[in-house]
Amino acid sequence: MKPIDFRSDTVTRPTAGMRRAMLEAEVGDDVYGEDPTVNRLEERVAGQLGLEAALFVPSGTQSNQIAMGLHCRPGDEVITEAGSHILQYEGGALSALWGVQPQPLPGEHGLLSPEQVSAAVRTENIHAPRSRLLSLENTHNRSGGTVWPLERFREVVAAGRRAGLAVHLDGARLFNAQVATGTPAADWAKLTDTTSVCFSKGLGAPVGSALVGSAALIQEGRRLRKRLGGGMRQAGMLAAAALYALDHHVERLAEDHAHTRRLAVGLAELPGVKVDLARVETNILLVEFARPSQEMVPRLAARGLLVNATGPHSVRLVCHLDVSASDIDEALSRFRRSVES
Amino acid sequence: MKPIDFRSDTVTRPTAGMRRAMLEAEVGDDVYGEDPTVNRLEERVAGQLGLEAALFVPSGTQSNQIAMGLHCRPGDEVITEAGSHILQYEGGALSALWGVQPQPLPGEHGLLSPEQVSAAVRTENIHAPRSRLLSLENTHNRSGGTVWPLERFREVVAAGRRAGLAVHLDGARLFNAQVATGTPAADWAKLTDTTSVCFSKGLGAPVGSALVGSAALIQEGRRLRKRLGGGMRQAGMLAAAALYALDHHVERLAEDHAHTRRLAVGLAELPGVKVDLARVETNILLVEFARPSQEMVPRLAARGLLVNATGPHSVRLVCHLDVSASDIDEALSRFRRSVES
Amino acid sequence: MKPIDFRSDTVTRPTAGMRRAMLEAEVGDDVYGEDPTVNRLEERVAGQLGLEAALFVPSGTQSNQIAMGLHCRPGDEVITEAGSHILQYEGGALSALWGVQPQPLPGEHGLLSPEQVSAAVRTENIHAPRSRLLSLENTHNRSGGTVWPLERFREVVAAGRRAGLAVHLDGARLFNAQVATGTPAADWAKLTDTTSVCFSKGLGAPVGSALVGSAALIQEGRRLRKRLGGGMRQAGMLAAAALYALDHHVERLAEDHAHTRRLAVGLAELPGVKVDLARVETNILLVEFARPSQEMVPRLAARGLLVNATGPHSVRLVCHLDVSASDIDEALSRFRRSVES
Amino acid sequence: MKPIDFRSDTVTRPTAGMRRAMLEAEVGDDVYGEDPTVNRLEERVAGQLGLEAALFVPSGTQSNQIAMGLHCRPGDEVITEAGSHILQYEGGALSALWGVQPQPLPGEHGLLSPEQVSAAVRTENIHAPRSRLLSLENTHNRSGGTVWPLERFREVVAAGRRAGLAVHLDGARLFNAQVATGTPAADWAKLTDTTSVCFSKGLGAPVGSALVGSAALIQEGRRLRKRLGGGMRQAGMLAAAALYALDHHVERLAEDHAHTRRLAVGLAELPGVKVDLARVETNILLVEFARPSQEMVPRLAARGLLVNATGPHSVRLVCHLDVSASDIDEALSRFRRSVES
Repeated sequence: MKPIDFRSDTVTRPTAGMRRAMLEAEVGDDVYGEDPTVNRLEERVAGQLGLEAALFVPSGTQSNQIAMGLHCRPGDEVITEAGSHILQYEGGALSALWGVQPQPLPGEHGLLSPEQVSAAVRTENIHAPRSRLLSLENTHNRSGGTVWPLERFREVVAAGRRAGLAVHLDGARLFNAQVATGTPAADWAKLTDTTSVCFSKGLGAPVGSALVGSAALIQEGRRLRKRLGGGMRQAGMLAAAALYALDHHVERLAEDHAHTRRLAVGLAELPGVKVDLARVETNILLVEFARPSQEMVPRLAARGLLVNATGPHSVRLVCHLDVSASDIDEALSRFRRSVES
Repeated sequence: MKPIDFRSDTVTRPTAGMRRAMLEAEVGDDVYGEDPTVNRLEERVAGQLGLEAALFVPSGTQSNQIAMGLHCRPGDEVITEAGSHILQYEGGALSALWGVQPQPLPGEHGLLSPEQVSAAVRTENIHAPRSRLLSLENTHNRSGGTVWPLERFREVVAAGRRAGLAVHLDGARLFNAQVATGTPAADWAKLTDTTSVCFSKGLGAPVGSALVGSAALIQEGRRLRKRLGGGMRQAGMLAAAALYALDHHVERLAEDHAHTRRLAVGLAELPGVKVDLARVETNILLVEFARPSQEMVPRLAARGLLVNATGPHSVRLVCHLDVSASDIDEALSRFRRSVES
Repeated sequence: MKPIDFRSDTVTRPTAGMRRAMLEAEVGDDVYGEDPTVNRLEERVAGQLGLEAALFVPSGTQSNQIAMGLHCRPGDEVITEAGSHILQYEGGALSALWGVQPQPLPGEHGLLSPEQVSAAVRTENIHAPRSRLLSLENTHNRSGGTVWPLERFREVVAAGRRAGLAVHLDGARLFNAQVATGTPAADWAKLTDTTSVCFSKGLGAPVGSALVGSAALIQEGRRLRKRLGGGMRQAGMLAAAALYALDHHVERLAEDHAHTRRLAVGLAELPGVKVDLARVETNILLVEFARPSQEMVPRLAARGLLVNATGPHSVRLVCHLDVSASDIDEALSRFRRSVES
Repeated sequence: MKPIDFRSDTVTRPTAGMRRAMLEAEVGDDVYGEDPTVNRLEERVAGQLGLEAALFVPSGTQSNQIAMGLHCRPGDEVITEAGSHILQYEGGALSALWGVQPQPLPGEHGLLSPEQVSAAVRTENIHAPRSRLLSLENTHNRSGGTVWPLERFREVVAAGRRAGLAVHLDGARLFNAQVATGTPAADWAKLTDTTSVCFSKGLGAPVGSALVGSAALIQEGRRLRKRLGGGMRQAGMLAAAALYALDHHVERLAEDHAHTRRLAVGLAELPGVKVDLARVETNILLVEFARPSQEMVPRLAARGLLVNATGPHSVRLVCHLDVSASDIDEALSRFRRSVES
């Protein structure tokens, strides 16, 4: 029985076409700035996001963390939604690497309001950390792939700007937001100082993310990348996969979104399964089981359904390149049998 | 018009008796461990709190922060109430000095529940910071001097222990809790790994706090104190003031509590002033004005009433050694005129 | 005119065979530990170096820095040779990421003596950083590729052990040491707690290094790798290149060594060029020019000879996979013309 | 037998006059900036050193370390003499608190040359830490109280300035330099961005140092002091001692210098004792014994002579307020007996 892997969109394997692109990539030493394919990717991504420059790095965590280090000094504070990736899934790097203290705000499905941001900013005071950076996430992973409506994003960013905050966007799945709404990724990114995008999630490349921002910030980012050990030599083969993904795997995210919705509708009908259909916006689906997730996860695995628990009764399902339309049918039937047994 | 200073119990000036004790103090070089008065204070405080050893330091912030550094490594996480002093008033030191990421939990007037703590602890996972320390605060400053009932404290500590967390108590005003409840300070402290107490708040000493804990932790704490620049030479004069305070200023905290209650009752009757009498437990009073605090604070100051704003319509009042019974009468009459004008 | 690139052995491009191995690599999500090729590489390297486990990371800097973080806490001290890579070429990461203070010792061509190490270790004392780690480098890059004789290495390690230090080996070019001496790499590595080796220097892989050590350390290393943003998803294609390099590019390092020596002998005969033939041990050649290096580097570049300056009159030349025997002849003739012009 | 304590000039006890000044000091809450005596001290010290503002802190370590934090960010580099206090005796704080990597240069009795500084500064390069600060020490403790000749100091500072470095002076014993040479302390301090002076060494106050610099730096320094836990409340009593010391204990440092010289001359005549008379400049004396210091230190202690070992055969002697002229005679006679026995 072939497993269907809903754990994350990070599990996709490079396609034959992508591998060929990697095989043929022209490479050089990127630590010297001489890898033509990396350079091409960096220019391409910067252009596509409407910012000056980009930096190719090994992971989304590194991309976000370089942004943290660019904007903040020790003793500074980052204002961000409580469930954001930079707080939950980056190994405490925010504080460990940069000495930055987060001020987590409870969001509405991952989204903040301008009033929340304004109220959170601290006035200058030697007793308090110094509010420095507003970090947002689009789509918001932990809330189930929520998209930031552009207007709300603009208002929240404006609230941060009024208080003198720099603004970072964790756009690991920004292209999902673009495809789901028709709003170009650049419309969000251009409002920020730095935006991070990932090639190895929905886009299906094996390795790599990019941080985009002003030329000056990105130049300094090279220094931080080196410090973190993210300087890779002939990275052009990885960049080739990312370029291939930008050419061939952006529009197809619509399929993942359709699959996710179909999965949601099917699961909503099962007994002991709760799905909030109004919140299925992109390729991530939060599911609530009547039974404990520590019972459900192995039971599903026994039927070849791989999912991650997110709470005592909840799991997360993610659709991606390696889950086909027929996999959804098959998955629904396996779910049905798992729930009924 | 003599100002009445309700901003904080840190503003007290040493009394004549205390100054005399300082004048006569026997001293030595405490960095070499040779100041007899410091040594006497450290033994006294450790004994009084039921733990093995103590370390005299220049401030409550340093006392708490040394505890953070003793228990945590970079990448670790501290679980603590959202309004706690270590997050709000220590300049971001938690993350800046030790690379520790806080997980702030919303408390009930500063108190947590065992369920909250258990749910907050993370399972071992390379993506997450490592839950390491539970830090509690008694009395809880920002919530208005709330006392931790011993039984609830015990349950919350037990929840932390079950999850393998170390436990620190920020007891800057622990003696207020003792006096308000009759529970000896040691009953809380003995449940913890480290407890910090302060001599320059309600106790009225000019300078100094102590961190207490096991002999091994305190020994390592000397190293951290040195690193932070808290090693003082002939600190015995300051320790003498602290010893005097332990002898003469603990029981009298009951007066501050009585004054605070009287102030609360009086203010509750004024128009445009809201006070929650049920929450007046020790020497801190949270007051809500109908008018904005940025209007009220200077208006009160003009009548010789010094208070700190804590929100757009709220201020904090603290009673202490330098606020007498007649000051309370006078203050109430000034408040009345301020509110009515 | 085809440039001959002596700047570093990091500039090599993957060969056709290596690319084919990458194309065909089986992959999975390595952050979940499911990339079979990465797993194969990690087992292979650990076995080859005689230690329990290995961790594949994007760069030699990250490999070394994870070791620093594994062994040290903030306030600790690393004892290491003054010119070592961890001090000179890792962007200050040692102190910036881990809060560790180095104690640099002047080496003899990069090598320390046991007496130096013993004298450097500090006794326990709150005023001093805590001596924690001895970090050695083999071959020693900045000293011109010096090999640590095994016996001397053993004695220096023993001196560190006697003082309770952990021991790390930066073995970015450890296979050069193996090939130059016939001593298996494991003979050095087995004496250490952690050893780092690099695939993208002389071995010619495009990207990647490995840290090897005990299973417990490497497990914790996964956490630090995640924190630094070094967790890559389908890293198996990169691991395939590393495996190919271990199969096909180790023995051939002897050619690089022979080329380096031939280059050295040829250059030593030129006017205004100084080379210490006794110190040419592996693939790195330090050259002293009578003229300033800031004049020589561009002059050589104009003739298609790429070199890095290392001082006001000195440059470093490195031989590698992409410098052939005939390139050496051609290079010598270009050097001659450059020097004579 | 009354011990004579040569371990450090930190061991002095406050005199009766100083204690009286402390007793009578007017105080306030210095964290609110309201302690009149602290304010008076800060103005006085700033004026005396020819810089804009000053900050009173609990120790010389904190004063130096706040300067490190003001000038540097993580990843920066401090260029300093290898034996300087900030490297040797501040618990690794430089790296632990600020993420700064030192580049220690071997000095000539603690003094650097302009050429050394110029050669040490790194050119902008992502591989290297960023050279940011030059930190000098006058007098130089570990080298035996060496004074920086003003002209040499000026040249070395100028070399740092040319390279864009900020300049800090650890002037814990700057007043010793002033008294020894007649050069006003301000002549050195005015050349720097920040200078630190200490009241609890030769000046004999029980606790406290000051950092002086521009108003903007000192304002930010208040924030760092708070973060390190150096904010003290009614610190005016300590400041009163410091003011008393500035009034009464500066000129008398000449006596300590005379005592030190007399001690040196006397010791130089003893068998098995080596003293370099040419290097006795202020109140610190380095002595070399033929016998191991771990034998000599307890043997001297048995005769009531307290000294600190600085190496396998060397000890340091420091003269101060609590060592009188007759103590020197007595000490010499005890040394003679110790050496001869």
